[in-house]
Amino acid sequence: MVFHRKLPKWLGATAAVCIVVLSGYAWAQTSALPSWNDGPSKQAIISFVKQVTDKSGGKYVEPDDRIATFDQDGTLWVEHPLYSQAMFAIARLHELAPQHPEWKQREPFKAVLADDREAMAKFSESDWEVILAVTHTGMTNEAFEGIVRDWLASAKDPRFHRPYTELVYRPMLEVMDFLRANGFKTYIVTGGGQEFVRVYSQRVYGIPPEQVVGSSILTKYEYQDGKPVLLREPKLFFNDNYGGKAIGINLFIGKRPYAAFGNSTGDQQMLEWIQAGDGARLMMLVLHDDPVREYAYGPANGLPDSSVGTFSDALMDEAKKNGWVVISMKNDWKRIFDFEK
Amino acid sequence: MVFHRKLPKWLGATAAVCIVVLSGYAWAQTSALPSWNDGPSKQAIISFVKQVTDKSGGKYVEPDDRIATFDQDGTLWVEHPLYSQAMFAIARLHELAPQHPEWKQREPFKAVLADDREAMAKFSESDWEVILAVTHTGMTNEAFEGIVRDWLASAKDPRFHRPYTELVYRPMLEVMDFLRANGFKTYIVTGGGQEFVRVYSQRVYGIPPEQVVGSSILTKYEYQDGKPVLLREPKLFFNDNYGGKAIGINLFIGKRPYAAFGNSTGDQQMLEWIQAGDGARLMMLVLHDDPVREYAYGPANGLPDSSVGTFSDALMDEAKKNGWVVISMKNDWKRIFDFEK
Repeated sequence: MVFHRKLPKWLGATAAVCIVVLSGYAWAQTSALPSWNDGPSKQAIISFVKQVTDKSGGKYVEPDDRIATFDQDGTLWVEHPLYSQAMFAIARLHELAPQHPEWKQREPFKAVLADDREAMAKFSESDWEVILAVTHTGMTNEAFEGIVRDWLASAKDPRFHRPYTELVYRPMLEVMDFLRANGFKTYIVTGGGQEFVRVYSQRVYGIPPEQVVGSSILTKYEYQDGKPVLLREPKLFFNDNYGGKAIGINLFIGKRPYAAFGNSTGDQQMLEWIQAGDGARLMMLVLHDDPVREYAYGPANGLPDSSVGTFSDALMDEAKKNGWVVISMKNDWKRIFDFEK
Repeated sequence: MVFHRKLPKWLGATAAVCIVVLSGYAWAQTSALPSWNDGPSKQAIISFVKQVTDKSGGKYVEPDDRIATFDQDGTLWVEHPLYSQAMFAIARLHELAPQHPEWKQREPFKAVLADDREAMAKFSESDWEVILAVTHTGMTNEAFEGIVRDWLASAKDPRFHRPYTELVYRPMLEVMDFLRANGFKTYIVTGGGQEFVRVYSQRVYGIPPEQVVGSSILTKYEYQDGKPVLLREPKLFFNDNYGGKAIGINLFIGKRPYAAFGNSTGDQQMLEWIQAGDGARLMMLVLHDDPVREYAYGPANGLPDSSVGTFSDALMDEAKKNGWVVISMKNDWKRIFDFEK
């Protein structure tokens, strides 16, 4: 840009930033998605963004309406062998156990405290609800955030021996950056706990708390020492999964997103909901087919199904029928994690 | 700015806009709040904004954390003789009545259809719930939005003979503009229906749907003709009033606002919640004490209390005790509506 030379350096830089900001509606592609191999997945993302930002085309979308939603577990970060939030709950249960000697004899606590993985793998939804109640409720929201923050600072994933917040997929961070650079507002729409994810969403994904939609616990407005607090009650308030993802999107955003990314049966309705709108829409599913760099589970190539992040045959059929793009971690991603060489 | 002369005019303008945007953290006061008389209320707003935007002071707030929340009914627009949404419900009831001949004999429908204002003034909360159920539910969200949009386009307020969306307070629009010009994100936090307010919030207040927090109806994810829809069920999902306002703020925003504006007992907890945070906080209540230009109700100067937008003596006591600023519509506002001469 010629006028740079005529400006003091800082003003030139300011103006340059501004030009990018103000012309951000135009399509920004420069070196987008460097961790993606060339192929139909990368192409689908780039072509979608080109369409919705091209004012002269018929699929142009106003910047205010450019919304993209991302599932978290298995879509933005690792969800195996168990969801990170389940790992947190288990750790918390161990921490609280000395105050609850009766847990040693009572399921589902007994299995967790004995580290009985076989029993835990068979836990029902109501088993997990009991565990969530004692580990996620009974304190103020602020206290809970502190507990999560402390755990994240010290806990490590059993396979990669790194903090859970480092197990995020670099290619997906690039997609979020690319969409944001093209005027999109990015949201996390997770079946996981909204309050849990908000603790690190800004730092890890560049997504502020108000753009995290998740499952939530009922809270009660109360006074402690004359000060108002929000107390977490042992009751689920909102289940942001399956149809709940479409409901949550409408409740929190009030607009129909143009792009959505998921990886499991809990994301199907979110993708359907988006596709039911007019114009260009991007629906993508991450398939875990890389046992070497990450994990392999799901329907393709005879991979085993999993109860954690289920990508069922039925979901694959839906994807094919509806033209959703399935991302192969193995083939589409040059690099998965930042810590890879 | 010297460098303007060196740039083509459009680039200069672009850069100028950018400088304002990028330096938006600094305090922007130029001709702020023109419809406010000089006095403690205007002073409180200006002094608050000065404090939170002054990097050298001890009360500086990062732009990402600058959140301001506004009640709607009685704070941003007229709520007498009845909340506009109640007027909508009544109109809708009349419209649907021919399909429900039994309503003529059944309360609370009977009173509404007979326009029995005395009976309606005594309606209980459950009477209103019955009316809300038949007027606000049983259709998809999209259909409901269409019904609201149509009503807003034709309905007129009985006293001012103007569309309800023109009965907004100019001084409060100026406060929202002033806060936004100083890096604040403005939210509506209303006891009214979230879906109702979202229909016009962008047009009337410059507030996008995702920044409207309100009471909401339970929705269900369903398929109609193979297409997914969100069906409105006859059940309240979330009551965004009293303690619910603090809960709603936490649920939807996940940050504690620095400024909040209300006008009735349903806003008390929102103001308490905000004040319980550190640093500079601005808590304001609009008092309706201008029977000539608008209405007069509330505790001051022997004004009658009202069941619509109750400003109780107890709330006034709280305001005094906690140092909340009470805005006098009569004395603080030069002009109330845009349509005034």
